[in-house]
Amino acid sequence: MNIKAPRGTQDLLPETTERWQHVEEKFIELCRRFNYQEIRTPIFEHTELFQRGVGDSTDIVQKEMYTFTDRGDRSITLRPEGTASVVRAFVEHKLYGIPKQPTKLYYSGPMFRYERPQQGRMRQFVQFGVEALGSEDPAIDAEVISLAMSLYQELGLKSLKLVINSLGDSSSRESHRAALVNHFQPYKEELCNDCQLRLQQNPLRILDCKKDRNHPAMETAPSILDHLNEQSATYFSNVQNHLDRMGIDYVVDKNLVRGLDYYNHTAFEIMSDAEGFGSITTLSGGGRYNGLVEDLGGPQTPGIGFALSVERLLMAIEAEGVQLPIESNVDCYFVSLGQRASDEAVRLTYELRKAGVQVDKDYQDKKFKAQFKAADRLNSKYVVVLGEDELANNIVNIKEMETGEQVEVAINELVPYLQKKLQGEK
Amino acid sequence: MNIKAPRGTQDLLPETTERWQHVEEKFIELCRRFNYQEIRTPIFEHTELFQRGVGDSTDIVQKEMYTFTDRGDRSITLRPEGTASVVRAFVEHKLYGIPKQPTKLYYSGPMFRYERPQQGRMRQFVQFGVEALGSEDPAIDAEVISLAMSLYQELGLKSLKLVINSLGDSSSRESHRAALVNHFQPYKEELCNDCQLRLQQNPLRILDCKKDRNHPAMETAPSILDHLNEQSATYFSNVQNHLDRMGIDYVVDKNLVRGLDYYNHTAFEIMSDAEGFGSITTLSGGGRYNGLVEDLGGPQTPGIGFALSVERLLMAIEAEGVQLPIESNVDCYFVSLGQRASDEAVRLTYELRKAGVQVDKDYQDKKFKAQFKAADRLNSKYVVVLGEDELANNIVNIKEMETGEQVEVAINELVPYLQKKLQGEK
Repeated sequence: MNIKAPRGTQDLLPETTERWQHVEEKFIELCRRFNYQEIRTPIFEHTELFQRGVGDSTDIVQKEMYTFTDRGDRSITLRPEGTASVVRAFVEHKLYGIPKQPTKLYYSGPMFRYERPQQGRMRQFVQFGVEALGSEDPAIDAEVISLAMSLYQELGLKSLKLVINSLGDSSSRESHRAALVNHFQPYKEELCNDCQLRLQQNPLRILDCKKDRNHPAMETAPSILDHLNEQSATYFSNVQNHLDRMGIDYVVDKNLVRGLDYYNHTAFEIMSDAEGFGSITTLSGGGRYNGLVEDLGGPQTPGIGFALSVERLLMAIEAEGVQLPIESNVDCYFVSLGQRASDEAVRLTYELRKAGVQVDKDYQDKKFKAQFKAADRLNSKYVVVLGEDELANNIVNIKEMETGEQVEVAINELVPYLQKKLQGEK
Repeated sequence: MNIKAPRGTQDLLPETTERWQHVEEKFIELCRRFNYQEIRTPIFEHTELFQRGVGDSTDIVQKEMYTFTDRGDRSITLRPEGTASVVRAFVEHKLYGIPKQPTKLYYSGPMFRYERPQQGRMRQFVQFGVEALGSEDPAIDAEVISLAMSLYQELGLKSLKLVINSLGDSSSRESHRAALVNHFQPYKEELCNDCQLRLQQNPLRILDCKKDRNHPAMETAPSILDHLNEQSATYFSNVQNHLDRMGIDYVVDKNLVRGLDYYNHTAFEIMSDAEGFGSITTLSGGGRYNGLVEDLGGPQTPGIGFALSVERLLMAIEAEGVQLPIESNVDCYFVSLGQRASDEAVRLTYELRKAGVQVDKDYQDKKFKAQFKAADRLNSKYVVVLGEDELANNIVNIKEMETGEQVEVAINELVPYLQKKLQGEK
């Protein structure tokens, strides 16, 4: 029996990886424009980090983590998300102490959750994310949202929906929490087991429950927006004003919540409403987490960020039929006849590559005709032919495939000739 | 107590990540020129893959793997190297069946080995690697070696040493193996415990033993080069001829071995002999493995590849004092005075970013002077000033930092003005 990739993981093969590279390059280029810098944290962390930084009561920590004991008997977990690790690094390396603030970071890499694999939900999946630490200016909330939106828009997506909400500060949340408990208490017995627990632990998450979402009490549940104190209401309205001025469309959804205690103020999600995208509509989510740095042992520091799934981004691109501008060809292919010519082609191939030209040749002892076919298959712009006669005369025969034009060039002129031709194209 | 990154792992922070990005971009660009395409395989695999594909008797499999049981009771291992996974994917997706052959793949990503952490040896480390599957042309051995050498050379390293050897085909190895057993048998009791075992299992690996390397029998041990049959000797000499023609310097070291059974013919290592690089001198290693695809359930397919450590590559760059061409600045920084101007700056920042300009502004309610200082810190090329007066007149004041030149520009001319200025620079 052959060994396969583990369930819920996938191999990305050439052609597919070119699509991944394209969206990654776009993300990195956007982060550069928005002045976010890259951070890379380890693939695994001490389990405790996620218990504290994601939350003991979450599904992620309770059911979905790849946790194991290493050879030194430490409990280690493959990271299920990026924020906890970035904040851990921010605290560990005292990044709050450097003069350049806020600290604006981005990351890109694999995350791991043990879930039932389905379309758009893999056990190993890749997230892009950003975190801005050290500012409580509503303008940076708008900046983070605009970065996420720009990525989708610049990649060509049109069917986008931005949903925002405010979770308020802690006193607004306390008031809302009390109202939620009052509201749901009479229906406690009708709610699912999880929600009965949530009523004590974290009533906000009832609003997020998939099982109880059609219960009549949901419709009439008190909204956080009615419980925002003045400061929180002003903050939220400033975020909206910035988005308005920037011309970014959004809708306010009072039921958009984030279940973790340290989330506050701005929460947002970007969805796709493209036809054919299926039931998975959320492309990315983010929000403000002013308590997290402190929870992980750092000084009180506000923060906001988002994470997005690259798999879903690529699904949305496919669902909308967007053609990514991916070129699949080589600059030049060498066709040679005879052992001496083939040996010389190996050397010239190397010379061209050193000079920046993308070039390939045959390595399977193919016949002359089959080599031309290989050049076609690679969609080569130029084919360089080197046979015994050419070699004897110290020349090569260069064919430009688009025009069919052929020229003879001295072997020691080949590199500058092709360099010039290829530069002229651009 | 704060949570730290796990022992043997590291966070890569901004500035450091820029160095990583630089070497990655160079590697990817080289792979493009050499016409290798990217493959991405999962971070973990079924443990059996490495037992079969790396080898049960190796230190990696016996002592160094991060192996654990997942929630579905499968034995899973964080990949300790890249070749086994790439070959697994090659077989699983039947890449040998597509017309474009050989299959030339590259990868870049984290690997995991539970070792004692020390300089240049982390538990999570990053490898670049390539694999060329489907060709047994000595020219492709030279291509793979030249790709690795080009990476180091184009990054500016000078103190490089390329060492090559041949392990021959299986009949050459059989003959060498018998000679090794004969040679070492009389000294068996003087060898370390591991080597006593190796004498039965894999006598070739005795030549690689760090404990016994000064034993007098090492000096006189039979060389594989004296046991190459005609075909293997011709193969090796063809590889050397290609390297000679390409002008790539090398030395033949008959003691360079690869311990795994499926390695054969060409083996190579690239070392740094830079002063100050310390005791770790091997930068990368590779070789031919014509048996591996078959071992993992595919059709008989020749293969060759190499892997290199990115950590060591960056150490070598530092040891040689090479300056990487990394620019650290932004195009533009916004300085504003007053709430209305600051709000307008948020919008204009976004407009500039959408137009491709790299721009940042203050998000910490800094005073006018402190904003200028922030612009300095970011090494900003232009500073755009927007106060109440400018806003009232619909203009901004743009200062070019290098020349000190200042101009007033209408707000709605800001984007094209800066675009033009920045393009003119290039």
